[in-house]
Order: sequence, then structure tokens, then C-alpha cells
Amino acid sequence: MKTIKGPSIHLAQFAGDVAPFNSLAGIADWAAGLGFTGLQIPSWDKRLFDLEKAVESQTYCDEVTGTLRERGLVVSELSSHLQGQLVAVHPAYDVAFDGFAAAEVRGNPQARTAGALAWPYLYPWPQRPAGLIEEAFAELARRWKPILDAFEESGVNLCFEIHPGEDLHDGATFEMFLDLVGGHKRCNILYDPSHFVLQQLNYMEYIDIYHERIKMFHVKDAEFNPTGRQGVYGGYQSWVKRAGRFRSVGDGQVDFRGIFSKLAQYDFAGWAVLEWECCLKNPEDGAREGANYIKEHIIRVSEKAFDDFAGTGTDKAANRKMLGIS
Amino acid sequence: MKTIKGPSIHLAQFAGDVAPFNSLAGIADWAAGLGFTGLQIPSWDKRLFDLEKAVESQTYCDEVTGTLRERGLVVSELSSHLQGQLVAVHPAYDVAFDGFAAAEVRGNPQARTAGALAWPYLYPWPQRPAGLIEEAFAELARRWKPILDAFEESGVNLCFEIHPGEDLHDGATFEMFLDLVGGHKRCNILYDPSHFVLQQLNYMEYIDIYHERIKMFHVKDAEFNPTGRQGVYGGYQSWVKRAGRFRSVGDGQVDFRGIFSKLAQYDFAGWAVLEWECCLKNPEDGAREGANYIKEHIIRVSEKAFDDFAGTGTDKAANRKMLGIS
Amino acid sequence: MKTIKGPSIHLAQFAGDVAPFNSLAGIADWAAGLGFTGLQIPSWDKRLFDLEKAVESQTYCDEVTGTLRERGLVVSELSSHLQGQLVAVHPAYDVAFDGFAAAEVRGNPQARTAGALAWPYLYPWPQRPAGLIEEAFAELARRWKPILDAFEESGVNLCFEIHPGEDLHDGATFEMFLDLVGGHKRCNILYDPSHFVLQQLNYMEYIDIYHERIKMFHVKDAEFNPTGRQGVYGGYQSWVKRAGRFRSVGDGQVDFRGIFSKLAQYDFAGWAVLEWECCLKNPEDGAREGANYIKEHIIRVSEKAFDDFAGTGTDKAANRKMLGIS
Amino acid sequence: MKTIKGPSIHLAQFAGDVAPFNSLAGIADWAAGLGFTGLQIPSWDKRLFDLEKAVESQTYCDEVTGTLRERGLVVSELSSHLQGQLVAVHPAYDVAFDGFAAAEVRGNPQARTAGALAWPYLYPWPQRPAGLIEEAFAELARRWKPILDAFEESGVNLCFEIHPGEDLHDGATFEMFLDLVGGHKRCNILYDPSHFVLQQLNYMEYIDIYHERIKMFHVKDAEFNPTGRQGVYGGYQSWVKRAGRFRSVGDGQVDFRGIFSKLAQYDFAGWAVLEWECCLKNPEDGAREGANYIKEHIIRVSEKAFDDFAGTGTDKAANRKMLGIS
Amino acid sequence: MKTIKGPSIHLAQFAGDVAPFNSLAGIADWAAGLGFTGLQIPSWDKRLFDLEKAVESQTYCDEVTGTLRERGLVVSELSSHLQGQLVAVHPAYDVAFDGFAAAEVRGNPQARTAGALAWPYLYPWPQRPAGLIEEAFAELARRWKPILDAFEESGVNLCFEIHPGEDLHDGATFEMFLDLVGGHKRCNILYDPSHFVLQQLNYMEYIDIYHERIKMFHVKDAEFNPTGRQGVYGGYQSWVKRAGRFRSVGDGQVDFRGIFSKLAQYDFAGWAVLEWECCLKNPEDGAREGANYIKEHIIRVSEKAFDDFAGTGTDKAANRKMLGIS
Amino acid sequence: MKTIKGPSIHLAQFAGDVAPFNSLAGIADWAAGLGFTGLQIPSWDKRLFDLEKAVESQTYCDEVTGTLRERGLVVSELSSHLQGQLVAVHPAYDVAFDGFAAAEVRGNPQARTAGALAWPYLYPWPQRPAGLIEEAFAELARRWKPILDAFEESGVNLCFEIHPGEDLHDGATFEMFLDLVGGHKRCNILYDPSHFVLQQLNYMEYIDIYHERIKMFHVKDAEFNPTGRQGVYGGYQSWVKRAGRFRSVGDGQVDFRGIFSKLAQYDFAGWAVLEWECCLKNPEDGAREGANYIKEHIIRVSEKAFDDFAGTGTDKAANRKMLGIS
Repeated sequence: MKTIKGPSIHLAQFAGDVAPFNSLAGIADWAAGLGFTGLQIPSWDKRLFDLEKAVESQTYCDEVTGTLRERGLVVSELSSHLQGQLVAVHPAYDVAFDGFAAAEVRGNPQARTAGALAWPYLYPWPQRPAGLIEEAFAELARRWKPILDAFEESGVNLCFEIHPGEDLHDGATFEMFLDLVGGHKRCNILYDPSHFVLQQLNYMEYIDIYHERIKMFHVKDAEFNPTGRQGVYGGYQSWVKRAGRFRSVGDGQVDFRGIFSKLAQYDFAGWAVLEWECCLKNPEDGAREGANYIKEHIIRVSEKAFDDFAGTGTDKAANRKMLGIS
Repeated sequence: MKTIKGPSIHLAQFAGDVAPFNSLAGIADWAAGLGFTGLQIPSWDKRLFDLEKAVESQTYCDEVTGTLRERGLVVSELSSHLQGQLVAVHPAYDVAFDGFAAAEVRGNPQARTAGALAWPYLYPWPQRPAGLIEEAFAELARRWKPILDAFEESGVNLCFEIHPGEDLHDGATFEMFLDLVGGHKRCNILYDPSHFVLQQLNYMEYIDIYHERIKMFHVKDAEFNPTGRQGVYGGYQSWVKRAGRFRSVGDGQVDFRGIFSKLAQYDFAGWAVLEWECCLKNPEDGAREGANYIKEHIIRVSEKAFDDFAGTGTDKAANRKMLGIS
Repeated sequence: MKTIKGPSIHLAQFAGDVAPFNSLAGIADWAAGLGFTGLQIPSWDKRLFDLEKAVESQTYCDEVTGTLRERGLVVSELSSHLQGQLVAVHPAYDVAFDGFAAAEVRGNPQARTAGALAWPYLYPWPQRPAGLIEEAFAELARRWKPILDAFEESGVNLCFEIHPGEDLHDGATFEMFLDLVGGHKRCNILYDPSHFVLQQLNYMEYIDIYHERIKMFHVKDAEFNPTGRQGVYGGYQSWVKRAGRFRSVGDGQVDFRGIFSKLAQYDFAGWAVLEWECCLKNPEDGAREGANYIKEHIIRVSEKAFDDFAGTGTDKAANRKMLGIS
Repeated sequence: MKTIKGPSIHLAQFAGDVAPFNSLAGIADWAAGLGFTGLQIPSWDKRLFDLEKAVESQTYCDEVTGTLRERGLVVSELSSHLQGQLVAVHPAYDVAFDGFAAAEVRGNPQARTAGALAWPYLYPWPQRPAGLIEEAFAELARRWKPILDAFEESGVNLCFEIHPGEDLHDGATFEMFLDLVGGHKRCNILYDPSHFVLQQLNYMEYIDIYHERIKMFHVKDAEFNPTGRQGVYGGYQSWVKRAGRFRSVGDGQVDFRGIFSKLAQYDFAGWAVLEWECCLKNPEDGAREGANYIKEHIIRVSEKAFDDFAGTGTDKAANRKMLGIS
Repeated sequence: MKTIKGPSIHLAQFAGDVAPFNSLAGIADWAAGLGFTGLQIPSWDKRLFDLEKAVESQTYCDEVTGTLRERGLVVSELSSHLQGQLVAVHPAYDVAFDGFAAAEVRGNPQARTAGALAWPYLYPWPQRPAGLIEEAFAELARRWKPILDAFEESGVNLCFEIHPGEDLHDGATFEMFLDLVGGHKRCNILYDPSHFVLQQLNYMEYIDIYHERIKMFHVKDAEFNPTGRQGVYGGYQSWVKRAGRFRSVGDGQVDFRGIFSKLAQYDFAGWAVLEWECCLKNPEDGAREGANYIKEHIIRVSEKAFDDFAGTGTDKAANRKMLGIS
Repeated sequence: MKTIKGPSIHLAQFAGDVAPFNSLAGIADWAAGLGFTGLQIPSWDKRLFDLEKAVESQTYCDEVTGTLRERGLVVSELSSHLQGQLVAVHPAYDVAFDGFAAAEVRGNPQARTAGALAWPYLYPWPQRPAGLIEEAFAELARRWKPILDAFEESGVNLCFEIHPGEDLHDGATFEMFLDLVGGHKRCNILYDPSHFVLQQLNYMEYIDIYHERIKMFHVKDAEFNPTGRQGVYGGYQSWVKRAGRFRSVGDGQVDFRGIFSKLAQYDFAGWAVLEWECCLKNPEDGAREGANYIKEHIIRVSEKAFDDFAGTGTDKAANRKMLGIS
């Protein structure tokens, strides 16, 4: 059995223009002080990490890992969230991404994308034209296949965050896509249960089905409290007023005790990475509580199985006698 | 107290090119034979009803009602579903409606619409630009206000079917819209619980909140069975494979016993109209069972309230004595 | 889509020594009068059917089917429950079967069996010797493989009733066995949800997983009402006093509406066969109510899918435009 | 957004004749030592606070607040529970209050009251005479109106603890009363979820409905465990034997995580005040654990809303383009 | 095993001044026409039955039973609800009963009673004086003991309807009372689950505990739908607006299928008597549907137990061998 | 009221051949260091305790208790689990116990037993011969009666661990056995809720029924997560793959907060003894977390009852006046 690694923290929601959140050394000090042992680094945020420099310079890479090692940290994963979204986008989201992109991906027109071609048609009314979804997924596969191959060449896993707003938003869509990329070895999953709470998908059974493809894990919480005014679609309300909303870890409805048990059972050997978004609590408390929460939930696995028989091994004859087989 | 009327049947899903489903007399015979006493007539389907002729000719209208009266039927409501959708549409749905429109609204380019401007942005990620929703609803109100006024002039209620895929898809969005049309008296609701099951909205509490605006009622069933593969978004699957799907009345999860009780409690005096869509059962069984189902669920209300005191009326002095008020 | 056949009735619990239950013609009259259209015939009960004669005489077989056809009945399946149990038995059950066998399989010493080798060891305490279960299942497979081959030669499906008391009592054990017989095409399942209620297995998800192997279906009801005195093991109580007990169809907790929906969805084309055992209700009411219950629950499937697009077919260019793919 | 204040502690159940519980300085030392930062002071208990002296002497008031300030405490609220009950009482409770009053309100004959006129008639059988409840509430309003006005003059909120045994025991009765005092600005609510658990009222939805009137908050826990012997009425049993009973905070069934979230969402800026009653646990543990419990549940609210768009503000033209409005 | 008798109908809510509800023959015709086979007769309603005449005249009694027999009816029980309430009453209810009594028990001053001495003190706040409940129950026992003895002399069972508003309102209070009357053989229970729904008592477990004392059974339905405005106490609202309210049989939440199963299991041999009160449905539908509902729920018990071993009886030696006892 | 003692720890799963787990002093150091105050000692494990020496030598016993006392520990109970199982065993388990016995009870042929005679027949199919269970329990009682008498002579309680795999596996079987040993005073219960989770027995109600016989308490956790593949019978899977499995305390589904409340309510004065088995977590974490868990859950009971009336005692006349009894 294997023990999950952690706690790590996804830095995207914490990076900022004020110290210590505006440099890798600064944010690493802060995270280490909270008890984190890994960092998930957003690869597009130059304040923390320069992707282009890393491509060209091993020295730079050594500096980065050294900066972390001095503080008892390692890079748990690189996050390439924004770049991934550039791969496929429906025009309806052009403007939205234009604004969003303004600060971070200035001058990169293709960045205005939501990672989805078919999302506007997720509700099956009005009826979708025959072949529409097939066409969308075929196109997605065409675009992603060379990227997956590049990851394979580098021996790195690529994980899709299964997420509303993306074409790959649940198990059914992941299976369609995986099939179209030929069950590609590097086509893996970032498992984040908060996105499943918000679509009322069974996130425990999800692990039973897809555990072999889960290579990343976001510890992020959420809650869904439907009323007579609102269900899953949220009525265009702000986060704080939505029936489904993200919460600081431990404040939502996700059964993390069950999730850590399942991941231990399936020998998941990756990282437990805090991702934090909460419409109520301040982020500093969220990060501090999150580090402790993950530490308390990691199961250091046992070497002792109660099934083990104390005897000397399989005795075929004794077994057959016990079964009444002459 | 008032007794709900019914059963009526929405004809849209039954109208067809084969007798008896291709003429008003034919379909009325069929419906009356199943025990229906009202018909909800799709106003765009010329095989059953000619809206333009009705506008111009009282004689035609008398013929229509006479045809029905001879069979023990009345018009419960006119359905203007398709026309209503023309009022506002986001371009992402142009093509979908083009195909859809082919048969019914040929030559009417504006018919290619889903009744929604903001629907592609229902999920709050990527973040919506500030003011986007406000702009969309302001535009909706601008377009609908004159129509509502026209209904008021004719003394007729206009009911929005609160429905995923539309901007008015739950209570929160209805309230936003109602506010923008000044709480217009004719801005009312077609209550169909199946659409709330599919978004996991509390459809019982919905009646408590909005009962004064509910003027139409579709008796339509649905179920939601989430798994580890799929939640509310449905993974672009066909109806039969979706976690959320419509079912023949009585085969789904809607608590109609509770709904009829609430409508009786709030003196709803409109019609109980069967709407049928099922991914499994054949429509003839659906219509026949639906008529019986509605009949069994209509509560003929009581004239006798157990609160009534058998005595001779309020006796203030006796009451004060009983309360110990000197 | 396919419509399930039925209602049929399993005759084992009704056969007796008093007319009309002591002859095939008699019991067929009775069953047809209740509305059944199929009979599941216990192949060991000579009062109704002579298996040896059937093997040798086509004439006899024609008489049997003729007797049924005259009454609007067909043979839905042959039940070989008792014979199947002879294949493997643990000695602990020798005496129990001796008594049980007295009336029906007199003089057949091998009939004293429960169809299980490992059942006494189902609870994992005391610890099972290593290899015990593997040995048991290997032996089971050795014994059943030639029988399965014989069925294949005859083009007939063999269905195991997944059942407590048998080694194949749930999905996990069925999978182990199926694997050991090489995924044999004729190794199929008799699905009876009552046995799953009594072991608290998710009988709905079971259909999702195993539907391709389900070829028979017993409509039998059960309930489980645990208290502070008793759980699933039943405390050696009689049926009427057990927390888990069988009930007449419709009186228990099985969600048959859901089961018939799933079977329709997966195009199950076999029979819905009433099996009746109830610790409270008399069998005549059970059979009569069961026939009606099945009739009401069979879903005559639809030919109309709401996903179908009314348009003229797949238009690749239109779809790509709709998806924003240039 | 606002952060709730706390923890405070209601002193009524802790005040006693033995040090440190018999003086304000003593009990303040004790409470500060446990981590409380506020005290809710029972205004009738002379051992802690002399209400009459406070009315006449600003110096005394300054001494009281000074005594607290030295220990890092403030007065969170004054409790006037007993005096409030004097305002209206049904004669059936005269004797009960006579005994109860003996120690605390000696010589004050009007103190024998339960704050209710109509409570003996809460169950609608035998039928209540017409007008009885209306008369009772009219009388209540007449008595309370001048008191509410006095509070308004002083700029102080008056909060009714919604409580079984009182006429104002749920939302329906509060609304009736509020209406009769003309929606008086000072007619507010002390929210204590324990009293709602014991009447099985939805205490979460209660906050959604009445949050604008909630000005005080008792952090008090309770549980309801009905059996075959007992339901909500309790069968005249002692607290420890009742199905519904109060528990030390954290030991009961109240979802305080949800409550603190709702209060944060609605910008409640008052105090979280521990009220402790438990039929099992000792009070010292209850107070100590309660202080920590409240500290852990207070949500220090965020300044960062994820809805905020990173862009430059509302761009009407861009929004209209995005919505497809020409 | 025994089969419950029925359907019978409690006439109290149906008796009236208009034919056919104003004479025994008339109401018997009506009830028989609906399919009832028994009548529960209110012994205080002279329009239907003259209790004093019955005491004195066997001829009158024979006429009554003859009138019923001609219509296929029998007297299932006499109801003495009103008289029973006269035995003990708290003064707080004097006025209420005065009015109530006006029509039915005119001139009988003692009729103004609710059958309870301690009910105003059911909520344990303010604290009850020590010994109060003990005194109340001792007095109740003193008053009822001679009545129970009189029933014993006549060989008739007396059943208390366990009911909110009475001192005997749940299992705990019934046990206290039964103990004080020395476990009197004639001190029995009228089981009506509707009163348990309204106090959230476990009415299924109630049968497990008290089945030996249950001699009467009211088939009456109820529902409890708590909200943020209201819980079990009902906020002095009218029946239609209460969270807990009575409903026509089949329209509420009572699991009658489970109740009839339990009563069959415990060999209850009394009557299933419809009692009807509904705040929504008209009484004629209630009576008609109730008769059918009871007929469908009565379990005609089986003579066949599946535990029965087909063998020849207990064989001690064989059993010991099977158990491995040497 | 009484406060439960603890935490203690059952040493059986921790004893081993490596220090500190191979001597009483060593394991006592370890346990005391984790905060335990009691030890439950397995009386068959000579590494920790020599039962025969203890029988003969008071000096040895004093040494044992002295060794513990020096470390702040006491013996909470002796565990005689293995010896107890020797009393009765069905031959089907001979082989299993042979292997199991190899290490611990070498040379003791009777040790090969599971404490059960009838367990292979727990499922009531095939039907059990009449009298089989009666015979088994009579034999059990015959064997245990002299042992119970010996305990009575020594003034010591004997507790049966109610456990699947044993004939006494729930309340029903314990009652049968207790009856056959004449309600023997020393026939008591070791309450371990984990075994009830695995059979879905109501372990809270169990305490209500049997609390007078509960003298020992194992704090052991478990979970049951049924799927479409597996229910309570476990499909012969290993612990980690079973739907029902033991978990480290706090990681399972047992409501220990409720259990400690019930035990406090019923004045249980024994020990809370950690028993640890987990298929995932390592034992050191399990023991450490378990000690803290028990400490946090022990309720130090209150001396203050809120029912106490502050007055001067029972005043019969005042009470009668309050009840309206003249």
C-alpha cells in the first residue's frame, strides 16, 4: 500500500502583487510556514515561475527547486490551466476571455477560450443536430492528440480537470474523449470533488470507476443547498448567493474522509493539493486550516493486513478437506 | 376553497401527420375517449388550429370551441411556446433552431431562438463580465413589456414556462425579470415540476413562494439518478442515458400527491394539463395512464373546515376569560 | 427498444397434491385465469412435468406446449433449481438436504446440497486459510464447465440465481466464477432483487453493471427492517420474525418501477416471472395481485426518441459552424 | 461583509452563590480565562449586576464596563428574560412561577408568568373558540407596544427569544405579533436553534426568512431522538429521558457550521453567545469547550469575491455583443 | 395467524342533521353502499344511537344490530370519546368545552373537559414543581380505576386513544398510567398513527412495544411538513396551514402497508376502522376511497409458513449430528 | 450519574515479538505514553501475562498490578477471547482453527473452535430441520452454565462479545441464550458497535434494550458501503475490498458521540476500551488517535439537573390546585 503525499497547495488563487505573494521565495516561505511540503505552481504566472526560461535553462530549473528545497518544499505539479484552455473555445466565450485575459495573457488572442466547443449545447433542448457532439469531440481529439504525444515523449502525465464549463465535465464525457485519443496513456484526470458536488455527481463511485486514470487531486470543498428559488443552474447569481458554491476546506459537504480512504485503498501515490476558493472565509485562514486538514486526513497506510493467515502457507489438501471436496 | 380543473392534455407531443392526430376533430375524439376534459392547443400547429384565422374570424373560433364542446371538451389554454422563443435568442443557437424550425416555422428567420440571451453563461466560470446579466435581463424586459401590455389589454394571462435553456429557468431569474417589468400583473408562471427535478430545485417550496403567480400547470414527470459517471449536466448523452430525464407521469420521482395538495391549499383554479415526454414508454400508454393519474390526484375540496367552532360566534368576553385576561 | 414479456409465474411454490395444483393442465388453467401468459416450470416436479420423458419424446414436449397454448400460455423457462444444487455441496448441509429431499428427490443421495462449497466461511473470521476460496471456486468451475458446454451445444442459456447460501451470492462472486469459466457465453444470471435486499446490495446499480448477463428475472419482493435486536443475520429467527424477509409482490421495499425502467433501457427481452414467498399473505392473493402488478409495471416501449432531430440528417459543415470551428 | 463577534457567554446558568460565580469580577475572571471576549449579563441577578443602580448611576455603569475591560471583556447584551415574562401570563402557570420566583423575584407578585397567554391552547383540539388567538395576540401587542417604544427612544434593540412555552414560539407567531405592533423597528429576534430542534422547525430556512430581524444569537445545542415510546411532547419525562433535550455545544444535532455560514452571508454583526444547558455533561467542560467551539466556527470573512471581474469595469457595448444583441 | 376485520367506519365525523346522515338506517345504507362491513358508533349521538335506551332495553339493542345485519354490517365498536373526556379536565379548558359542548352535551356541565389534568405543563419550562406529574397521574388512576373495573365486569375492553391534548399522549405516559392502575387487564389502547405523525413518534416501533394492549385501530392519515416558519407546535394556525395536519387516508405520510403488516404479524384480530378528517378533500370522497384503501391493505393471512420443514418432525440425533455435537 | 472510565486499550492486536510489544512493562510504557489509563489484557498471551501463574501466585498478580500502577495504569479487564471460543465449535471450522491455533494455543486440540454450533445454518435456506436451533442453544447453555457459576463464585462478570461468526451474534440470540441460563446474573455483554454496523443492526437502540447487561465496551469503528457488486456477505473478498470493514476509530461510521451519551445516561461505570483493526491505517496512528478520541468523547457527567425545582420541595396542596383538582 502507498501513502498519499502532502500537503501541497495550488498557488493560483494566492499569487498577487504584494509580498510575500509576488515571488517564489516569498510565497514558499509563507507556505512552508503553514506546514505545506509541496507547491503546485501555475506555469503562466511570471511572478512565480517563468515557463519559457525553464524550457531553455536547466540552471533556472535548479534554482527553482533549490529555492523550494531550502524551505522543505518540492514542486508537486505544474499547473497549465490557462494554456490548456486555449486549445479549444466556442466563440460565445470570446468576449469573456478577452477581459479575463487582459492581465495575464496580454497579446495572446487565442487565450480567450473556455476549453470547450460544445458547452453551450449541454442542455438537450433545443434538440442538438445529429452528429454535433461527435463532431465536437472529434475536433477536440484532433487538437489534443499531438499534445498528449509530446507529454508521452517527456514522460509526464497530462491531467484534465473534469469541470463544468469544459467539454470534459464528467465521466461520460471523459470516456468519449479517452476513446477518441485511443486510450492514450498520458490522458489522465485531475480529480477535484468540488466540481462534482456542484453537478451532483457521485464523486465516491467516480473514484471506483476511474482510479487508474487519477494522477492529480485537488482538495477543494463545496456545498449544494437547493431551495425553492434555485437549483444547480444558479439563476445567474453571484457565488455567495448560489445554491452550489465553493467553500474553504472543511466548511463544505465533501466527504474527504471517504475520499482519502478510497485513494489509499487504490494506492494513489500522488499529492493532496489544497485548492482554495470560498465566498465567505478569508484566504489566510483557508490556507492555514487547509494545511492542517490535509495532514489530519492523510492515512499513513498499514503494512499489516488482518486477512493474513498466521499459518505456514497454502495447504491445498487441508483446504480441500475443509471444503468437503473428496 | 377551489377544485383544480382537469384532466387536460398538451397536444404538442401528440400532433402528427397521421389520423387521428392530424386534425382537431380527430385528436379531440381521441383525447375525449381517454377521459380528458380539456385541451391545451399549440397555437403554431396549423393541423390543429389556425392562429391567424382565429384572429380574424369569430366564426372560426366558435367552430373550434363547438368541435370541442360536442366531445365534452374545452380549450384549457393556448400554448405559444414556439412564438415566445422567438422574442430573444443568443446567436449560438441559431443553427440549432434553423433545423428545428424547418418543419414548423418555415420562412420565419426569427424563429431560430431559444428564448434566452444569457444561457451560455449560466455557469459562473469563466467569470462573467460585470453588468452582463443585468444587460441581458434589461433587454429581455424591454422586449417583453409590450407583449405583456397587449395581454393585459385582452385580459389574458401570459405564463412563462420556467425551464432550463431559458433565461427564466428558476425562481431567482423569474424574480429578476418580474422586477424589471414592474411586477406586471400578466407576468405569470407555467409551473412544470419536471424541469425542477432536472435542476434539483425544491419544487414544493417553489409553490409556497410563487403560488400567486402560478396560472398554468403541466403534469409532467421526471427523474434524476446520478452516478459516478454523470450528474446534472448529462455528459452530452441522449435522453435515455441521462441521469436526469423525463418520464411518463407516475413513472418518475415527482411527488404529485404533494403538489396537488399544495395547489388545493392555495386555491389554484386553473387546469391540470398532462404533458408527456418519456424516453422509454410509448405515448399512447402515457396519455391513457396520464388521464387516469390526473383524475385520481385531483382533490375535490371540502366545504367543511375542522377549525370551525360549533358555537355561535366570537364571544370576546369569554375569550378574554379563557386567556386569563382580567 | 424491446418490451419485456410477461407476466409469467414460477410454479415451484404453488405445485401441490391437491387440484388444480397437481397437474399441468390444472395449474395452467388457474394461472391463465389470473392473467399470466407464461409459466416457469420446475423441471424436477413430476406432477407438472416429466423431464426424462421430455428428453426422449418430442411428442410429449408437443403435448406440453399444446396444453399451454390452448390456454394462451407458453413455457417461459425451465427451472432446474434443485438439480443445480446437486453440483456442489459442503458436508455441513448434508443433513439439512436429506430432510428437504425426502419428498421431492427421494432416492437421489446427491440431491442433498446447497450449491456451495465455501458458504460456511463467508464471514472472514476466523481468518480463512490462504487459498481456501481460490480452491473452492476452482472446484466449482471444474464441475460447471462441462454443463455450460452442454448448454451451449443446445443453444440454451444457463442462469445462476445469485442468492445467499450459494457461493455465487453477489456480483463479486459471480465475477470470480465467470472469470474461471473463461467468460463462458452461457454463464448467465437470474436476477432476483429480493435476495439483494436481504444482503443490502445495491440492486439497481447491479443491473447497470451486469445487464448483459441477465437473462432471467424473478419478480419477488422483500423487506429489511433492522432493529436493536436484529440485523441481517436474523438471529436464527423464523421468517416472520426476521428483520429481512420475503414479501408478496408490492408489499415489500423493492423499487420495481425502477427495475422495469432499467430493464427496458437495456433492451432486456426475457420474461418477468412472478416468484412468490410471503410470511404473511396467503398465496392465492399473492398470485392474483402479482399478475396485475407485473402487467402494470411492464413498459411497452416507445418507438419515438425525443433526441431525434426533425431535420434532414447530419450536416457536417453546419455542425462545425455551430461549434465555432473555422 | 462582516465578521460575527465572539465568543460571549450567557451567565444565567452559571451564576451561583459560590465564588467565582457570585460576583461580576469573579465570573469575569473565569470567563476571560476560558477565552470569552463578551458577557451576556442577566439583568435580574443582583449578585452580578444591579439594574436599578445602573439606571440611576453612570458611575456604576462605568465601573461595570471597567471591570470587564480590564479582563478583555465587554457586555455583549443585557438579558431581561425574567422581566419580559412578567408582561403576559396565563393563570395556569401562576403556581409554577410562584415557586420559581421564590428565590429571584421575591415580593414581586407579577413575576409569576410564562410570557404567554394562549400557550395552553397550542394544540388545536379541542377546537379553539373563534377569535381566541386574535384576542390573545391583540392583548400581547397592547402590552408590548409601549415597551418597544421605550427601547426605540433609547436606541436599543429588543429581541424576543422564540421559544416553546411562549406565544411567540415560531416564525408564524412572530409574524402575527410583528404585524400587530406595526412592524416595529425594535421588535427583533434572539435566534436560538436549540428551540427549533425541539419543535422540528427548519432552523436554516428560518435564517433565510427572518435574518433582517435577528439581532441576537444563542449558541445552544439540542437533539431530538424519537422512539416508539416518545415524540416531541416528551411524555412528562425529565430532561435526560426526553426524546428532545438540550446538549452541550457540539454534542447535539445543530448544524452550527451551516448557521455561522448563513449569518456571515447575511452580514450579521452581533455576538455569538454561548448558552449552556446539558442533561449529561458538567457545566465547566461545557463552558470551556463552548468557547473553543465558537472560536473555531466564527468565519473571518473575506474581502475577495471570486465573482469580481479582473477587467476594467462594465463595458455596455462589449456585453451587448457577447449577448448577441445587435 | 389472524386476519384483521374491516373495513369499518367511525361515524362521528359523518353524522349530521341531513339525510342519510341523521339516522342509523340511513347512514348504514350509505356506509354499506361504500363497501364497509362494520360501524364504529359514537355512543353520545342520539341521532344514531341512544345509549340510555340500550342500557335498559335488549329489544332496542336487537333492533340496532338487526338494522345493521340487514345491510351486511355489524357494530365494530362503541366510541365513548366525549364521555371519557369528562373524567378529568384542567380548568384552562373549561370555556373551550363549554362552547364545544353546546350542541352535543347540552346541560351536562361536566362535559367540558379535555381528558387531561397536566397537559398545560407538557413543556418542561418553566420547571414543573416536584411531584406535580405524579399527583396528576395518581388522580387520573383514582378516577379511572372503578371504570376499568366496570368494564372488566362486563367483559369489555376499554381503549384509550393515545392523543395530544390528553395526559395519555404517548407510550411513556401510557406506561405511567398502566402502572398506576396495576396493569389492569382492561386498560388498552386505541392505536391511531395520525396522532403519532403529528408528534413525530415512531409509530411502527410503537406496535412492536405495545401490540399486546392494542385492541382498536383507527385508519387515519396525517402529514408533517416543517418549514422555516413552523414546526410541530403549529403557531396557532388553522389546520390547513399547520405543518402537521390530518389528511384523507392515502393522502398523508402514514405507512399503512407497514402497519397492516405488523398487525398481521402480531395476530391483531380487531377492526380496521376508517377515521376521516382532512383539511382539503371532501368527506364523501374520503369515505369512498377509505373503504377501498382498507380493503386493499387488509392482509388475508397465509396458512403456509416457509419455515416449515417438509420432513417428518424433530429428529434429535440428526440435529446433534448436524451441529457436530458428539 | 456516573462517568465512564478510560481510555483503556485492548492489547491483543498490538502484542508482538518485537519490543516494546513483547513484554508487559514495555507495552505498558508505550500505552501510558499515548495517554491510556487502563489495559485490557489478553489472558492467553504469555508474552504479556501468564494466566496459570496468576492463578497460583498472588505475588505475581501484585507484580503485574504494580508494574501498571507505576505507569499510571490499571487492568481494566482480562480478555479470554480465545479460551471462550473453545467451549463450542462446529466441525466445519476445525481446519481453520487448526491453523489459527498453531502459534498461540499449540498442543491444545480443542482450541480449534469458533464459539458457535449453528452458525453455518444462519441463513434460513435450505430450511433448517425443526428443533435444530433449539438443540444448539440447549447445548450451548449446558456448556456455559458451570462457567457462569464459577464466575459468580468469584464475583466476576463474564461478558460475551456479540459478534458475527458466533451463535450469540445479536440481541435475539443473546435473549435466547440468557433465557436458557436462567437469566444468570453473570451472563453479560461486551458491547462493540463495529460488529453491529457490519450486520446493519441498530446499535443505538441496542443500548436502550440491553444496557443493564452491558459491562464491557469496545471502542471500535467500522463502515458499510454497499455497491452493485457487494452487500453484507462480502463476496469472500479481503477486508480492504469488503463493503463492510473495520476502520480506525474516528474513520468509520459509528456514531460514538451518541453512544457515549447513551452510556452516560444509563450510568455505565465500566471502561471505554480501544480495540483497533483497520485495513488501511497503520496501528501506531490508530492507537494514538484512539486515545485522544476516547478522551474527547468521555462525558464528565453533571451534578446539576435542570429539572430540579428551586423551591422547597413537594407541596401536595399547591400541586393539586395547579392541576385544577378540587
